[in-house]
Amino acid sequence: MPRTIELWYEFASTYSYPAAMRAHSSAAARGVHIVWRPFLLGVIFRDMGWTTSPFNEHPAKGAYMWRDMERICAKQGLGFVRPDPFPQNGLNAARVAMALPDDARGAFSRAVYLGQFAQGRDISDQQFLMDTLAQGGHDAPAVWGAAMDDVNKTALRDQTAQAQKLGIFGAPTWRTPDGELFWGNDRLEDALDWIDAAYP
Amino acid sequence: MPRTIELWYEFASTYSYPAAMRAHSSAAARGVHIVWRPFLLGVIFRDMGWTTSPFNEHPAKGAYMWRDMERICAKQGLGFVRPDPFPQNGLNAARVAMALPDDARGAFSRAVYLGQFAQGRDISDQQFLMDTLAQGGHDAPAVWGAAMDDVNKTALRDQTAQAQKLGIFGAPTWRTPDGELFWGNDRLEDALDWIDAAYP
Repeated sequence: MPRTIELWYEFASTYSYPAAMRAHSSAAARGVHIVWRPFLLGVIFRDMGWTTSPFNEHPAKGAYMWRDMERICAKQGLGFVRPDPFPQNGLNAARVAMALPDDARGAFSRAVYLGQFAQGRDISDQQFLMDTLAQGGHDAPAVWGAAMDDVNKTALRDQTAQAQKLGIFGAPTWRTPDGELFWGNDRLEDALDWIDAAYP
Repeated sequence: MPRTIELWYEFASTYSYPAAMRAHSSAAARGVHIVWRPFLLGVIFRDMGWTTSPFNEHPAKGAYMWRDMERICAKQGLGFVRPDPFPQNGLNAARVAMALPDDARGAFSRAVYLGQFAQGRDISDQQFLMDTLAQGGHDAPAVWGAAMDDVNKTALRDQTAQAQKLGIFGAPTWRTPDGELFWGNDRLEDALDWIDAAYP
């Protein structure tokens, strides 16, 4: 439990992509273990009164974010294409991530992000998700079946409700074992500094 | 012009406070000069359809921001009290900042931020602003007269319109000489890195 950090992420979220890609190596370099927590940000946005991404709602904010993503991905050496449409529907991807064992969730999630943001794939597409699972060495039909099971759907809904209860309103959000939230890809280092101070 | 960075700030903005307090020393350490650009974020928020701060509009976002401000101020060794009411009316402070010579704007702005966020002062209060000017070695009545002159009021309106035209939608925003925007206190280092690369 100490020296772990929860990464709360939404598959359609742009800034969750560079966060997911660097989370493991950045945290591992500081001896911190990542716990991957997919959730459905759209559900929380709806309760905030938003019907689409704030990046679509506010053109200046959107224009800034797309430029910022280009810069961040260039800096991290990541490919970047703008998803079309945006935001994509990340529900199935999140269900599959939920259904995987804890230690497989990170690699699968990174592969989905690369598909979406580096290769322009549609992450709601079952075939894309099945291929991604197979390439990760999983029994794709078995995982897909588990992902679409009511128990797993409920687990994802519960995890989204938990995010909301924890005060999470955006993605990515980093959460320390003592409950501190740090919102945004650029706050990972602050979260790791917090863990260093709280759990030396 | 090269190796300068514009700091676009709003006096009522919480994250502009730690940004203003560290801007000069962080930039000077890298040989970069700060250009202080006060503007009225409320005008831009109105055009985005908001009637108050998004931190008031969305309770989870507000709760996060107040906790984050506590952490950031503790890390920077800054006092922090929550302004009441929030947001404060920063119009007069912005007018005074506009009326000051370029090289006096930073010190005055920092003093106003400290008054608001470390001492709980009302920054719309004329006496507070006059005292702050006097303590900064200014002829307070003369500066106040210039600040309330129509020419200066128009200059501030124009600067706000320019912010909007540049795509600025939040504060603080850092702007490089080649027009790159970096939004947020935590992005100053990225903006300085950008300047290092563009203007070695």
